[in-house]
Amino acid sequence: MKLTADIIAIGSELLTPHRTDTNSLWLTERLNSIGIEVMQKTIVGDDEQRLEHAIRDSLRRSDLIISTGGLGPTEDDVTRKVFARVLGRQLTLDYDVLETIRERFASRGYQMAPNNERQALVPAGATVLPNQNGSAPGLTISHESKFIVLLPGPPREMRPMFEDQIMGELENRSRGTRIARRTLKVTGLGESALDELIAPIYGQYSNPQTTILFTNCEIEVHLTATADNLSIAERLLNELSEKLKGKVGDYIYSTAGESIEEVVGRGLAEKGHTIATAESCTGGLIAERITEVPGASRYFLGGVVSYTEDVKTKLLGVPQEMIERRGVVSGEVAEAMARGIKESTGATIGLSVTGIAGPGGGTVAVPVGSVYIGLSDDLVTSNRRLMLMGDRQLIRWRTSQAALDMIRRRYLG
Amino acid sequence: MKLTADIIAIGSELLTPHRTDTNSLWLTERLNSIGIEVMQKTIVGDDEQRLEHAIRDSLRRSDLIISTGGLGPTEDDVTRKVFARVLGRQLTLDYDVLETIRERFASRGYQMAPNNERQALVPAGATVLPNQNGSAPGLTISHESKFIVLLPGPPREMRPMFEDQIMGELENRSRGTRIARRTLKVTGLGESALDELIAPIYGQYSNPQTTILFTNCEIEVHLTATADNLSIAERLLNELSEKLKGKVGDYIYSTAGESIEEVVGRGLAEKGHTIATAESCTGGLIAERITEVPGASRYFLGGVVSYTEDVKTKLLGVPQEMIERRGVVSGEVAEAMARGIKESTGATIGLSVTGIAGPGGGTVAVPVGSVYIGLSDDLVTSNRRLMLMGDRQLIRWRTSQAALDMIRRRYLG
Repeated sequence: MKLTADIIAIGSELLTPHRTDTNSLWLTERLNSIGIEVMQKTIVGDDEQRLEHAIRDSLRRSDLIISTGGLGPTEDDVTRKVFARVLGRQLTLDYDVLETIRERFASRGYQMAPNNERQALVPAGATVLPNQNGSAPGLTISHESKFIVLLPGPPREMRPMFEDQIMGELENRSRGTRIARRTLKVTGLGESALDELIAPIYGQYSNPQTTILFTNCEIEVHLTATADNLSIAERLLNELSEKLKGKVGDYIYSTAGESIEEVVGRGLAEKGHTIATAESCTGGLIAERITEVPGASRYFLGGVVSYTEDVKTKLLGVPQEMIERRGVVSGEVAEAMARGIKESTGATIGLSVTGIAGPGGGTVAVPVGSVYIGLSDDLVTSNRRLMLMGDRQLIRWRTSQAALDMIRRRYLG
Repeated sequence: MKLTADIIAIGSELLTPHRTDTNSLWLTERLNSIGIEVMQKTIVGDDEQRLEHAIRDSLRRSDLIISTGGLGPTEDDVTRKVFARVLGRQLTLDYDVLETIRERFASRGYQMAPNNERQALVPAGATVLPNQNGSAPGLTISHESKFIVLLPGPPREMRPMFEDQIMGELENRSRGTRIARRTLKVTGLGESALDELIAPIYGQYSNPQTTILFTNCEIEVHLTATADNLSIAERLLNELSEKLKGKVGDYIYSTAGESIEEVVGRGLAEKGHTIATAESCTGGLIAERITEVPGASRYFLGGVVSYTEDVKTKLLGVPQEMIERRGVVSGEVAEAMARGIKESTGATIGLSVTGIAGPGGGTVAVPVGSVYIGLSDDLVTSNRRLMLMGDRQLIRWRTSQAALDMIRRRYLG
């Protein structure tokens, strides 16, 4: 049977700008890995009425309810109390649990503060989960067809408790269902253009499910397959993924989770290429992205950031006369920059960028977003013009992405 | 009247392990700043029935409902449709909105894909919020006593839309309690060292509240003051902030929310300095950070990324013999790089970095994390050695931070 889960993160601090809930992300990964789908995440403060409402909602929706937080010793830790009330179960002091907590303090030379007694309150019929890393024990409750898990909030207490004491039980309950995921990373296509291309294909499949995500200038196509076992799920992924690849072709640069700088770096190293960069509007971003990859020194030799005409002429050998005649943002200057950096570093490929990232500096002839990318190798030097949308940061990012993608298509295809 | 808000983050990807909702954190900060309290955050998938349920819940609970996401052009973007249904309002195609979207594409030389039409559907009585940074317009709906705001998911579209088009309206609606915040940005001190220094001071104040946050290599001290009006809240902030400044001194580089590259950039421009960079292990990151600031061309001339000895000798004029004698990661080479880039660009300040970011390349004498920063001006050339902890990315980041901070302390004090 396919199980569904709701996650409730409890704590007023999670409704302030200072703290965010990270537990649910980790829990989602663990639940997905055994075929359990998360239906909703709810984040509530330490407020009895609102928590009660959230629990009732989750009970209506999902088979499994996991809460984190609110099991501490203070007044505003209301999780135990509210769950007991909603489920109509008495809360009684469990002397074994109390003794364990007391011993935990004693073994560290402390005396247990009276308010820790609260942590030994257990709803009737609940199972207590010992906490190896803190004083608050967790709880599980089987209620009608639902399974309810109360976990402490601190990740270093919550994670081992869930892993050691809950995962096995959930795996038994969700026998049969497994989820596999794959991400196709796409660049060079717009979100709606991509969707029009592939909707007729993925639309035929309810399994795998397809979600399209847009970040910066990349698009990710997430495929999620559900099956009785992982090898069937993988086979479903393969089938849809091959069909999508057939349609989208080499706009897909990775299906293995790599970044484009990793794909480009690996390709350059494999083909024995070396590269050097000459950047104006990206200000070093392309070199920075290439060298983020460990071992980049195998294929990256160096670069020049030329923010003035003087640097372009002196360090890259761009003729002053060319800049005056063609303008500093032009295909000719991009080509001269690429040739210049190739020659001065001895790289097999010179990559250059000149453009206007804004917000200032645009003209009618050369508006903000105008970018030329130059490429130079032993045989040929060429340039490509782009008109990019977005603010300064996005134009810089998109330029660097387009430049890396040009390397990939030209030299690593 | 004190207003309450619910935030609904919409998107199936937010229920996978790949993506987490960050919008709600930012929105909470903005809402708190005008005295609006967040009651609950809900994260739902692109599922009509579940979203409908979440909206009904929020309408019962809060005065203000803010949703993010699900306004895109694809099949699974259901936000507009479901809100319209829950509120009992017809959804009609708004030709003005459609024309705006079409023009947005046309102005960049693209044709609008037919599925973008969906983004021009507007519930009866709604107000359309133009989107300066993307194609999906936002919407506001006044419904009985409730105010409903639908925002796009990408933060770079959502934030300016909320700031420019929603904040003023909400400020009018939430007269009464005011919250003022201030952030002291600190660099060059460890988190516990800072806390030991200032805990005796902020510990005396319950208002403003103090929270210390650690990100990358910066520490932020967040002060939050609550009062009947903003000028009292600001006065409370001033008092505590002055006391903290007296203790922490120039480890604080900003109290106005600026990044260190903005502080450095403004200072260089004011003093009439120009700067050029020579980077090895940071691979262009310093140049990239400096040029992220609009108008950086006033003070940044250019840079060299020297990933090989050859580039160091040829483009920066570092003597080969010095590299052999002292090693490429050494104070002498750092100074020669700084002098070299200063001379070839004509900048008033040359800044250089040579080091080992790892994971490979370390030796017993020069382990991973060893970094030399060089500074050269008309009067003096010097270097400073750092031993940094962290992985490749963090060492690169910390190096760039330390370099920018050296500029700030040496030339802008």
